[in-house]
Amino acid sequence: MPPVRRLVVDVLKPHEPPLLEFTTSVAETEHVDGVTSSLIELDQEVQNVKLTFEGTDLDFEAVEDAIENLGGSVHSVDQVACGEQVVTDRRTLQDA
Amino acid sequence: MPPVRRLVVDVLKPHEPPLLEFTTSVAETEHVDGVTSSLIELDQEVQNVKLTFEGTDLDFEAVEDAIENLGGSVHSVDQVACGEQVVTDRRTLQDA
Amino acid sequence: MPPVRRLVVDVLKPHEPPLLEFTTSVAETEHVDGVTSSLIELDQEVQNVKLTFEGTDLDFEAVEDAIENLGGSVHSVDQVACGEQVVTDRRTLQDA
Amino acid sequence: MPPVRRLVVDVLKPHEPPLLEFTTSVAETEHVDGVTSSLIELDQEVQNVKLTFEGTDLDFEAVEDAIENLGGSVHSVDQVACGEQVVTDRRTLQDA
Amino acid sequence: MPPVRRLVVDVLKPHEPPLLEFTTSVAETEHVDGVTSSLIELDQEVQNVKLTFEGTDLDFEAVEDAIENLGGSVHSVDQVACGEQVVTDRRTLQDA
Amino acid sequence: MPPVRRLVVDVLKPHEPPLLEFTTSVAETEHVDGVTSSLIELDQEVQNVKLTFEGTDLDFEAVEDAIENLGGSVHSVDQVACGEQVVTDRRTLQDA
Amino acid sequence: MPPVRRLVVDVLKPHEPPLLEFTTSVAETEHVDGVTSSLIELDQEVQNVKLTFEGTDLDFEAVEDAIENLGGSVHSVDQVACGEQVVTDRRTLQDA
Repeated sequence: MPPVRRLVVDVLKPHEPPLLEFTTSVAETEHVDGVTSSLIELDQEVQNVKLTFEGTDLDFEAVEDAIENLGGSVHSVDQVACGEQVVTDRRTLQDA
Repeated sequence: MPPVRRLVVDVLKPHEPPLLEFTTSVAETEHVDGVTSSLIELDQEVQNVKLTFEGTDLDFEAVEDAIENLGGSVHSVDQVACGEQVVTDRRTLQDA
Repeated sequence: MPPVRRLVVDVLKPHEPPLLEFTTSVAETEHVDGVTSSLIELDQEVQNVKLTFEGTDLDFEAVEDAIENLGGSVHSVDQVACGEQVVTDRRTLQDA
Repeated sequence: MPPVRRLVVDVLKPHEPPLLEFTTSVAETEHVDGVTSSLIELDQEVQNVKLTFEGTDLDFEAVEDAIENLGGSVHSVDQVACGEQVVTDRRTLQDA
Repeated sequence: MPPVRRLVVDVLKPHEPPLLEFTTSVAETEHVDGVTSSLIELDQEVQNVKLTFEGTDLDFEAVEDAIENLGGSVHSVDQVACGEQVVTDRRTLQDA
Repeated sequence: MPPVRRLVVDVLKPHEPPLLEFTTSVAETEHVDGVTSSLIELDQEVQNVKLTFEGTDLDFEAVEDAIENLGGSVHSVDQVACGEQVVTDRRTLQDA
Repeated sequence: MPPVRRLVVDVLKPHEPPLLEFTTSVAETEHVDGVTSSLIELDQEVQNVKLTFEGTDLDFEAVEDAIENLGGSVHSVDQVACGEQVVTDRRTLQDA
């Protein structure tokens, strides 16, 4: 199976744990070389955050478990890059 | 025949399998060095995703078969790059 | 005659052959090092596509013949770059 | 625990100390290799500033203490990057 | 006299000769290392095109003659870069 | 104290001295390796300019004195970068 | 006095001499390594052009004299970069 190299995941999480702790915990997941979380929106109950993972062969199930163990949930997987080569997608002229 | 080096394909897929599994499966297609899938839109039945493939000589039929075997369908081929050189197209001054 | 190094051509093509086959066929034209086609618009009869060619000395007549042999037609030539040096044009401050 | 490499923090601070002194003081926090502060908005009482920290293993609690000791408060943590690799997140095609 | 290194010229040309032939002919002008023409607009009589020339010491009179010999006319000179160093101009913060 | 490496200062200055003389004078301030001033707005009495300083360890008080000695005043400090590493801040996905 | 390295000057000039001759003449000013002129606007009497100069130590008075000797006038100095280091200014997050 071609390795998963980059994942962008839209996540809903409770206010606790805070984003910092949430991110460092999820970053401990095996095969994760790095993760960046960006706050998108928040209301009284939840925070909507975007998590971008990079690694040599990411394990989404392990990532999802880590998110759920912290009280979060994956709202959607927005981008997946896999294979020997990490492909950067761009808007084509139709949408440029 | 000049090699196909990059392909951008607009795909409609059912919710199952999830985007991750869908992408890693399609990435197994021969001659695919890497593929990135981006979620564009989704409704109750389907997901509209954009798949960008790169390889030394992509085989579209094999790619399309893989997509269809997973319950998806190619809505349109949005971009094709072929030849010894991968040409980056840009908007010309007319559209800039 | 200074070599033609890059050509951007606005093309109308029928749905058959599909964009992939159309592009790989046109890419076989002599002196074409690479070509990228991007779908711009389509309706029931035709597809409007933008073809960007690069080569050491492109032969537009041969390119146009190839396009016409596939049932397509050149709607307009949008950009031509020729000479020893490939010049990138940009919007000037007036239009920036 | 994977190192925290980059932090973007939204801060409310009083007019005193001024942004310069505030930033140089916070920059003294252990593990901070560099910090850039940008003024976002100000009214009669407070300034809203964005602080971006980079380091080999940032200590958020120490950063937050430094901010609070200067009379400021962390309004939100907007971005966290951690791991061996600093991941740059980008908008995906859905939002591009 | 400092050498002229880059010229952007706004040109009106008849439909004949076509843009390709027009550009390759103008590219033969002495001291032109490369020229890129971009179609801006066209109506029934004329095409408005932007020609960007680069060379070690461009001769505008010779360029203008070539344009006029092909039935075109220089509508305006939009940008001139001259000297040992080719200066890239950008919008300043006032216009950014 | 961590060195101040980059400063963006919003300044109001009288028409005299002119921006050029104003900038070259302020540039003489100790520890200033370079300064770029950009005119933002002007009315009959004053000019609003943005001054961006870079240096190994900028001395804001000396900079402010220089500005005031020339009849100007610091309207606000918009950005401060300090530390061993100059951190580039960017909009996060929330604001992108 | 710190050297002036880059100048952006907003100029009003009569139609004669044309922009090309105007620019090559002004480029002869001492210490000018390169100058790029961009046409911004024109009406029946005058052209509004932006001139961007670069050099090791530009002499604005000499530049202004050259502009005035050609019938032009400096409308405003929009940007001045001086010092050992040429500082690129950018919009801060406040204006981004």
